[in-house]
Amino acid sequence: MKKIINNPNEVLGDMLKGMTLAHPEYIKKLDNANVVVRTQKAENKVALVSGGGSGHEPAHGGYVGKGMLDAAVAGEMFTSPTPDQVFEAIKAVDTGKGTLLVVKNYTGDVMNFDMAKEMAEMEDINVEAVVVNDDVAVQDSTFTTGRRGIAGTVFVHKIAGAKAEKGGSLKEVKEVAEKVIDNVRSMGMAITPCIVPAAGKANFELAEDEMEIGMGIHGEPGTHREKLKTADEITEHLVSKILDDIKIDEGEEVAVMVNGLASTPLMELYIVNNKVNQMLSDKGIKIHKTFVGEFMTSLEMAGFSVTVLKLDSELKELLDDVADTPAFKVM
Amino acid sequence: MKKIINNPNEVLGDMLKGMTLAHPEYIKKLDNANVVVRTQKAENKVALVSGGGSGHEPAHGGYVGKGMLDAAVAGEMFTSPTPDQVFEAIKAVDTGKGTLLVVKNYTGDVMNFDMAKEMAEMEDINVEAVVVNDDVAVQDSTFTTGRRGIAGTVFVHKIAGAKAEKGGSLKEVKEVAEKVIDNVRSMGMAITPCIVPAAGKANFELAEDEMEIGMGIHGEPGTHREKLKTADEITEHLVSKILDDIKIDEGEEVAVMVNGLASTPLMELYIVNNKVNQMLSDKGIKIHKTFVGEFMTSLEMAGFSVTVLKLDSELKELLDDVADTPAFKVM
Repeated sequence: MKKIINNPNEVLGDMLKGMTLAHPEYIKKLDNANVVVRTQKAENKVALVSGGGSGHEPAHGGYVGKGMLDAAVAGEMFTSPTPDQVFEAIKAVDTGKGTLLVVKNYTGDVMNFDMAKEMAEMEDINVEAVVVNDDVAVQDSTFTTGRRGIAGTVFVHKIAGAKAEKGGSLKEVKEVAEKVIDNVRSMGMAITPCIVPAAGKANFELAEDEMEIGMGIHGEPGTHREKLKTADEITEHLVSKILDDIKIDEGEEVAVMVNGLASTPLMELYIVNNKVNQMLSDKGIKIHKTFVGEFMTSLEMAGFSVTVLKLDSELKELLDDVADTPAFKVM
Repeated sequence: MKKIINNPNEVLGDMLKGMTLAHPEYIKKLDNANVVVRTQKAENKVALVSGGGSGHEPAHGGYVGKGMLDAAVAGEMFTSPTPDQVFEAIKAVDTGKGTLLVVKNYTGDVMNFDMAKEMAEMEDINVEAVVVNDDVAVQDSTFTTGRRGIAGTVFVHKIAGAKAEKGGSLKEVKEVAEKVIDNVRSMGMAITPCIVPAAGKANFELAEDEMEIGMGIHGEPGTHREKLKTADEITEHLVSKILDDIKIDEGEEVAVMVNGLASTPLMELYIVNNKVNQMLSDKGIKIHKTFVGEFMTSLEMAGFSVTVLKLDSELKELLDDVADTPAFKVM
C-alpha cells in the first residue's frame, strides 16, 4: 500500500483537520462529530445536509458553502456515517425552516440518514430526504438495492442548494432535488482498483490490459470486464448507455460532468470530454455547461464517470446561480 | 501503459479539443497554433502569456481567463513549445500595451520563449519575460540550469495577472511578477513515476516501498530516494527545506499551495496540509490563504509539492483579487 498518510486508522481525522485548516473562510468541523458545516451558519433558509463514507473527496465537505450544502457528514472510509452523526449535522444547521437530506443510494446511507431523520422529527425538526440513484450501470449491487448514487449527486447539491439559497420552502427544495434526480444519469469505468487504508489491500484486481465497465465508486462490480479500449470507444459505450436510459430530444439542453475517480489525469478527462461533446452534438443536444475534474472520487482509483443532466429553464437558472464552496465555484 | 487515450501521438490535439469544448465561455484555441486564448480578447491591458510542455494540466490552459493569463502555449508532452508557437500567442493577445512571458525555468522553455520574444520585438511588440525558479530541491538538473520552476508559477500567473487586469504597465506587471518569484519556494516528492504516451514506458522506477524526494515535474532526479515515510515526516522534510531557503519571520503572512501531481487523492493532500499548517503556525507564521488541489501535475505521477509564498500587502491584495478561469477562481 503506497499512500501518503500517517496512521491508516486516523486518516479520517487527519483529513478533516487538513481540510478545515485549508478553508477556514468556508468551513469548520463540529466539535462533537465528523461533520463539516459552513463557518458562518446560514440563517432563515432551508438547510441541506449530505454525506456518506469518506474516500470520495471533495465529496461532500468540499461542497459546503454558499449556494450548496450547509453540512456534510463524513463516515469512515467507504463506511456510512452513523445516524447520530447525521443527527448532529441536522441540529447544527437547521434554522427552523426545515432540512433536506441528500443521500446517495447505498443501503447503509439510506438506513442511517433515515434513522437520523426520525431522531430529528422526534425533536420537532422538519426533515425531508431525497435519494440519488444516477448510475445506469446496474440494478442492485453489492451494497445497494436499486441503482447506485454517484457523481450526479453533485448536481443535486448545486441545484437544490441554489433553490434553498433563494428562499425556497422545504417542499420546493425537495421538489427541485427530485427533478434533478429524475433527469440525471451517470456511468463510470475503472482501470485500477483502490485500497481502503485500514484494509491495506486492493478491493478488486484488474489485469494490466483490463478495465471494469460500470463499477461503483467503492469498487462494486460493474456490468463486465474487458480489454482496455480507446478513450473514444469507452466513452461511446458509457454515453450510449446513458442516452438509452433517458430520452433527450434534439434541441434539448444538458449539463455534462466528466468526473475523475482520482488517479486519472485531467488530460485524459479532457480527451473523454471531446468524445462526449461530439456524441451529444451529433444528436443535436445542446450542451449548456460542462464540468471536467474530480468531483466524486474513489480513494486512488483510476477511471472516470460521465454524467448527463437534462435541463429545463428552472434547472438551468439554478445551475447557473452563484456557488462559493471550496471545491465548486460558479461566479 | 494503462491510459485513457486514443492514439498516443494525438494526445495533445485531443486534449486541447476537449478542453476548449468544455470551457467555451472562457477559452478557445487559435486555428494556427497549439495556443489557448481567452474567448473574449482583453483590451487595453498588458497581456500575459505562459505555457510549456503539456502533461501538467490544468497548467497552463486552465489559467487562461480574467485576472490570470491571456494565452497559454501547449507543447507536446514534456516538450517545450517551439518559438513560432509562442510568437503566435503573443501576436494574438498583445493589445499594444506589451506582453509579459511567464516561463518556468526549464532550458528548452527559456530558450524558446526568448526566441519568441526576439521575433515579437522585430515586429515592434514590447515583450518582457520572467523566469520562475521556485523549486528549492536541487541546483541544476537534467533539463535545467539553476533551479526548476514548478507549482509556484501559478502564484505568478495569479498575482501578475491581477496587476495587469488593474491596468498596471508592463514594467509594473513584470516587477510584481519578479516580487512573487523572489518570495515563492516549493519542493515536491513522488511515489510513482509517469509515462509519456508516445514513449510508452515509465520515466523512472521506484520500488514498492520507495519514494523520490525533490524530483522535478518531468521526473528529473531529486535529492535522494528513501523508504516511504509518513505524510507528517515527508511534509516536515519538504517544508523545512523551504523555510531553510527563505527567511519568514514570526507574524509574517504567507499563502500555501499543496499541489497534487495527479494520482494523489485530495484526501492525502489534505493530510499533508494539516502538517504544513501546523509547522507554519508553530513558527508564528500567519497563513493568509491555502490552496489544496491539482495545479501543476505530471501526467499520472503520484506525489505532491508544497509551495509557500511570503506575502506583503501588495501581493496579498493582488492574490485576493477576482480571478475567473477554468481551473482557478477567486470570488
